[in-house]
Amino acid sequence: MDAFVISIGSELLTGHTINTNASWLASQLNMAGIGIREVRAIPDKLEDITAALNDAGKKASLVLVTGGLGPTNDDITMNALCSYTGSGLVVDQKVLEDIRQFFKKRGRDPGKVNLDQAMVPEKALKVIRNPNGTAPGLWMEKNGITIIAMPGVPHEMQHMFTAVILPELIKLFPGNHIIHRHVLTQGIGESFLASRISFWENDLPPEISLAYLPSAGIVKLRLTGRGKDGKRIRDMIEEQITKLKRIIPEYIWGYDMDQMEEVAGRMLREKGLSLSTAESCTGGYLAHRITLVPGSSDYYRGSIIAYSNSLKELLLGVSPGLIENHGAVSGKVAEAMASGARKRLGTDFSVGITGIAGPGGGTAGKPAGTTWIAVEGPGVIASERFIFGDNRERNIIRTANAALMMLIRAIRDQG
Amino acid sequence: MDAFVISIGSELLTGHTINTNASWLASQLNMAGIGIREVRAIPDKLEDITAALNDAGKKASLVLVTGGLGPTNDDITMNALCSYTGSGLVVDQKVLEDIRQFFKKRGRDPGKVNLDQAMVPEKALKVIRNPNGTAPGLWMEKNGITIIAMPGVPHEMQHMFTAVILPELIKLFPGNHIIHRHVLTQGIGESFLASRISFWENDLPPEISLAYLPSAGIVKLRLTGRGKDGKRIRDMIEEQITKLKRIIPEYIWGYDMDQMEEVAGRMLREKGLSLSTAESCTGGYLAHRITLVPGSSDYYRGSIIAYSNSLKELLLGVSPGLIENHGAVSGKVAEAMASGARKRLGTDFSVGITGIAGPGGGTAGKPAGTTWIAVEGPGVIASERFIFGDNRERNIIRTANAALMMLIRAIRDQG
Repeated sequence: MDAFVISIGSELLTGHTINTNASWLASQLNMAGIGIREVRAIPDKLEDITAALNDAGKKASLVLVTGGLGPTNDDITMNALCSYTGSGLVVDQKVLEDIRQFFKKRGRDPGKVNLDQAMVPEKALKVIRNPNGTAPGLWMEKNGITIIAMPGVPHEMQHMFTAVILPELIKLFPGNHIIHRHVLTQGIGESFLASRISFWENDLPPEISLAYLPSAGIVKLRLTGRGKDGKRIRDMIEEQITKLKRIIPEYIWGYDMDQMEEVAGRMLREKGLSLSTAESCTGGYLAHRITLVPGSSDYYRGSIIAYSNSLKELLLGVSPGLIENHGAVSGKVAEAMASGARKRLGTDFSVGITGIAGPGGGTAGKPAGTTWIAVEGPGVIASERFIFGDNRERNIIRTANAALMMLIRAIRDQG
Repeated sequence: MDAFVISIGSELLTGHTINTNASWLASQLNMAGIGIREVRAIPDKLEDITAALNDAGKKASLVLVTGGLGPTNDDITMNALCSYTGSGLVVDQKVLEDIRQFFKKRGRDPGKVNLDQAMVPEKALKVIRNPNGTAPGLWMEKNGITIIAMPGVPHEMQHMFTAVILPELIKLFPGNHIIHRHVLTQGIGESFLASRISFWENDLPPEISLAYLPSAGIVKLRLTGRGKDGKRIRDMIEEQITKLKRIIPEYIWGYDMDQMEEVAGRMLREKGLSLSTAESCTGGYLAHRITLVPGSSDYYRGSIIAYSNSLKELLLGVSPGLIENHGAVSGKVAEAMASGARKRLGTDFSVGITGIAGPGGGTAGKPAGTTWIAVEGPGVIASERFIFGDNRERNIIRTANAALMMLIRAIRDQG
């Protein structure tokens, strides 16, 4: 069972958009045991779409198409599918109603171009509704080949695929089990981690393979098991994870789709504890990460972002002497920021961050990327220095990850 | 003059690697006036590579191949090119010496598999040396079609392309120009924008095409011009942009690679004005966006993130009566937040945001996604209500974009 991915959109051929849809679909299909034969990115042109559909049907039994379903003139995928399958267009009443509701919810009237998106090929076996946008997905067939078309907007496509298409595909094409599990670590580099766990890695059974996926201070360890017996493979992976937890307990903070801010939030909620933050160089990014979690207002109170020294004094009560004697980027100031936020915002825990995000602003003694992070909680205050690189955005992300790890450890230690 | 990109590597078809090489090459070629006809990602299999080369030769006069030139058994691009061009292998002495030096520098001996990388097709017109790795690039020809093969490791490929290949291509294929310009809008949906500018769009000269690239409340309008005379095309595009600016001045905030936070920052710096923010539902994301810009501390002072009502009162001085009478999510409270931050942080401008990020927390009168944004500046206070969807992350991004647009307008109006 092979699949063929057709990515439609001129923006993919000008370099303006990276084709992340194709790789996302590839990884999803792979996990379901469906291999990809080819990925083809083509412009919104009828003859190219038709040629790609023809070739795809010769090479694979499943064809996934993304893009070109929007309301504007440059979107012609729907027409191409009609002409390819010899189908006319009909109005889908459910989609029409979805579009009306979509606009109603936003307090606006749909235009004709939007309502026209309810026109779908009459030969479509299934019209896939789109709760995140106005373009529906299509499930069609020609000469025994399954053709599925989805919008190119990533979150619309992903939701449609996960909620409707993948479950149907798994029913249609059952078979080999590929099971992935992720162990999430922070604070140890890929190569150090590899040598630390090499004994365990070399001992993995042949059914299980390991990959290191590093990003911004986090290394994800992906264990992939393959075999006919799903339960056996799953148990084998669990056994290996149990062993791994004994080797590097201090670096593991979560599993699979966990996010650090979710893990910290769950721990705070379970223990009935509250949190505030005081940020300088991360400029609100830590607060943003924490508040991305739905329901975070249950434990998170807020943050004071003091970009200037005078605001560190005014809003957080950091004493001018401290800044003068130790510098704004110092352990003492990070601790005073955490302490000030904790007191003023009245929370159990608080995190203080001060540093030089870069690329400018560094000195010989304190290069760009130097960051101090402090965590204060009931009976505990800890601060740590990190020296990252000179890429501003990466420094901000790495700092937030390091801060969340310190916070997770501190809450964990509360028992 | 069209190009065809063939990306070779099984990792591209399992989702483990995103095909950034193709988009990088596409943008480089586009800037040189060479359009991309198709991008095809295929596995390291002889029949797939041969079929792709055949198809490519029918569709384009330039074929760029990346990947599959490494030293291991799964790398078969070199063999495929030999069989496709009917060429035998010969040792390239310069490449052999490069490989020896590469290993010597690293204090290691090359193995036979590495030295074998000096074997290149005898029919290669040019062997492109690789200062960053051991796999050389190849420049070949068959039936008047130019075929260029490069390693798949991005930095090796990019260096080779920029230093050797691109300058040669520009010499070989002068003339045709493809010029892109982007007009960046915010606050009007794709379909409304399309109908608003349809008269202008339908009137575009045949040399210029238009694409709508929407994301999170922002729609990028990409104008692409093609022709022999670069200056003429550039002037034609500028003329169209001038017309467009007259039709939708209120929605345009920037051009090409501009970011909203950069545009706002530039305006503040030029006018010597300062900024602070007060956020609730966006939880620091607006502050994060603003502080992503290097040097933002020149005009940005900080933010107060007041997630709870009591902190809105305590930290921003919002009166309890206001929250009681109008609700925490209201224009009055957004204005009081902006006003409070402006006073306490002592800045010229301040933005206040209060809303329901969702997916929970909505009511019948105020569904999830309801957001009030206020901007206060010298002699001006404005507030506006937005109703987004129930996707938390998207709501946060859309809110920040809407807030930055209101801020840009307010600073602009300062004259």
